[in-house]
Amino acid sequence: MALIFHIIRTEGPINRTDIVTRTGLSKSTVSLQINRLLSRGLIREETPGGAGKAKRKLRLELAADSGCVVGVLLGIHALTINVFNIGMATLVEGAWDMSSVIEPEPTNRFIMEKIEELFLKAGIPREKLWGIGIGFPFPVDFMKGTADSPPNVPLWNQYPLRKVYEDHFGCPVLIDNDVNVMALGEGFSGAAQEEKDFIFVKVGTGIGSGLILDGKIYRGSKGCAGDIGHIGIDGETRLCHCGNQGCLEAIAAAPAIAARGLEAAMTGESPLLEDILQSRSRITSRDVGDCAQRGDMASIRIIQESGRKIGSVLAKLVNFANPGAVYIGGGVANSGNLFLSSIRESIVKRSPHLATIDLSIRFSELMARSGPTGAGILIVDELFSFSRFQETLDHRLPAEYPPAR
Amino acid sequence: MALIFHIIRTEGPINRTDIVTRTGLSKSTVSLQINRLLSRGLIREETPGGAGKAKRKLRLELAADSGCVVGVLLGIHALTINVFNIGMATLVEGAWDMSSVIEPEPTNRFIMEKIEELFLKAGIPREKLWGIGIGFPFPVDFMKGTADSPPNVPLWNQYPLRKVYEDHFGCPVLIDNDVNVMALGEGFSGAAQEEKDFIFVKVGTGIGSGLILDGKIYRGSKGCAGDIGHIGIDGETRLCHCGNQGCLEAIAAAPAIAARGLEAAMTGESPLLEDILQSRSRITSRDVGDCAQRGDMASIRIIQESGRKIGSVLAKLVNFANPGAVYIGGGVANSGNLFLSSIRESIVKRSPHLATIDLSIRFSELMARSGPTGAGILIVDELFSFSRFQETLDHRLPAEYPPAR
Repeated sequence: MALIFHIIRTEGPINRTDIVTRTGLSKSTVSLQINRLLSRGLIREETPGGAGKAKRKLRLELAADSGCVVGVLLGIHALTINVFNIGMATLVEGAWDMSSVIEPEPTNRFIMEKIEELFLKAGIPREKLWGIGIGFPFPVDFMKGTADSPPNVPLWNQYPLRKVYEDHFGCPVLIDNDVNVMALGEGFSGAAQEEKDFIFVKVGTGIGSGLILDGKIYRGSKGCAGDIGHIGIDGETRLCHCGNQGCLEAIAAAPAIAARGLEAAMTGESPLLEDILQSRSRITSRDVGDCAQRGDMASIRIIQESGRKIGSVLAKLVNFANPGAVYIGGGVANSGNLFLSSIRESIVKRSPHLATIDLSIRFSELMARSGPTGAGILIVDELFSFSRFQETLDHRLPAEYPPAR
Repeated sequence: MALIFHIIRTEGPINRTDIVTRTGLSKSTVSLQINRLLSRGLIREETPGGAGKAKRKLRLELAADSGCVVGVLLGIHALTINVFNIGMATLVEGAWDMSSVIEPEPTNRFIMEKIEELFLKAGIPREKLWGIGIGFPFPVDFMKGTADSPPNVPLWNQYPLRKVYEDHFGCPVLIDNDVNVMALGEGFSGAAQEEKDFIFVKVGTGIGSGLILDGKIYRGSKGCAGDIGHIGIDGETRLCHCGNQGCLEAIAAAPAIAARGLEAAMTGESPLLEDILQSRSRITSRDVGDCAQRGDMASIRIIQESGRKIGSVLAKLVNFANPGAVYIGGGVANSGNLFLSSIRESIVKRSPHLATIDLSIRFSELMARSGPTGAGILIVDELFSFSRFQETLDHRLPAEYPPAR
């Protein structure tokens, strides 16, 4: 039943004959399971458009509105939540600024409240909530469902995130780190839909990456694969918050860009940034990106330098992992093509021909939506995985839905 | 039948009841397939040790001598060939120096002759040869079975290696690059038997790595994953044979060690190397390794410097891929623990705690045997893969073996 449902969910609308062909199961077995799925309301038939041959061709599809899931991305400065139906269409969404995520209790309480507000706002009954996926901006132990030695927010260490949400909402919850779910989202409905092996790089307050290998998140031996922000740049000595020197994140992420922008404003090297500093008393990485796009030479140099440093690290990783594509997301990705072309130039210059000849290096298509989308598909795939399918049926659908005739 | 054979091959000796339990198949189905496998001579029963209960516990195992495979590793300077039975026990082996591998025809002719000599020497009939696996010291297109833009041996480019060997020997052949099969061998019967995710690094005339992720060779999008020899070391400018500057291979592989050893001999910095130079008119990387192990300070510094450079690149890859272990093989691995500890120190210094806390960094256990072993298991696994099992039965075993009773 799980297999037949999987085919209908991912390939539907599809007719019965094609399901028989695809599975190699007998017609009677397929029919039996389809009838069970129909009676539970998890799939539906298209309205018949004719009789005879047309009727036999009646196609089956996911009953996408039978349940919904929540996809959450928590950033250091922002929270994004999407409620999707189980067909991954967005029902309602929201985004909020976060002043601080230092303490776990108030942060998680805020997230829970916002999820509940969205359900109220859209008039979705709480029993329709089947599962929640959340991306957090620090390392997590995916299997245990806890935060794992987060360097910047020590109060979260070992915090039982999955359990806290499962207890509160009474449905399955998966937690992951932010860039893993962003990568997953980009692969599901963004730029990477055709790619099996790719690296998704987030450049924001920090720098991290998610690896999708053979279509699945690759987590590594301890779950910290993709942690590229703390790769050292040889010869750089700037101190990183992690305690090491010359980490990519310390050199090329948003705070480094803002710091160099401030320098350029104070030395008068950039008149545009100087104006911004005078009117707002601070410079953000976004200011530098905006000024670069307006042609400010100092800002252009700062953005290019950041892109080149990121590219020089990515060149090494491209040599090593030979991905089909690299996608750049996160706040700094809003700095425009100048940023992307500096990254691309560094990668191509320092990688062998074979590894770059068909390598696609592009911005994320989904941008801010990649995270919630990935968190949503993470939990939908889990709910309908072969090992969890029966539990989902038993716990999420009333036994007699739609009411027995 | 393929599934039951797989269980017997990888877990045998095993009794019928356990096979029923493991597969979930009915007793009668299992019995039927076991009888077919027995009649083809691919498995055998242990000699019965008793009657009644003992007889029912009769266990099944692979008939390892029903066929054999050849595992070949071609290096730039050496050729190693092992003939294994299909249970991967070595039947006969040989190693030869190679004066040149510049031209494909004479090189491949030499390899073919040596394979045939081994069969003659061990008295193995040619029809027992079921398949050949070969590791080549340059990039190959695994799917097409050809050499792929080899930078040092341009005459091999697009050379149809698999076809040439299949035509000559009339059996399935798989080709791969050297370090992929070395990694596979180390995972099969070397240090990495318990590791699912690891990096095997070869440091010899060149530097390369094989990635085993989830127990399988990870090849990347274009088949060149693991190509770490041409990762650039920031700030280094030494010209590499690939045309780039500052590649790891140009800085830390055997030729670089030998060149620095020569310098130390000529400047008198190392009296030991000076003696060697005077008596033999040349310095090899092995000389430097030997002198380092004898306490020669200049040689120690050269070996440590190579280890540190390799470690600094591996630190970045450990951050990125979070493997469970790193194994070091290849000729330079004979330089001793000094070399290994320099690599280890650099990795630990520049990687986050979580990625290194359980990371094992060790020498290859199989060393020179890792390549032929990996090439052997590559082709054995292919012969008995579900998609090729029937073909192997049809083509490799006489229909009536053992003669029908």
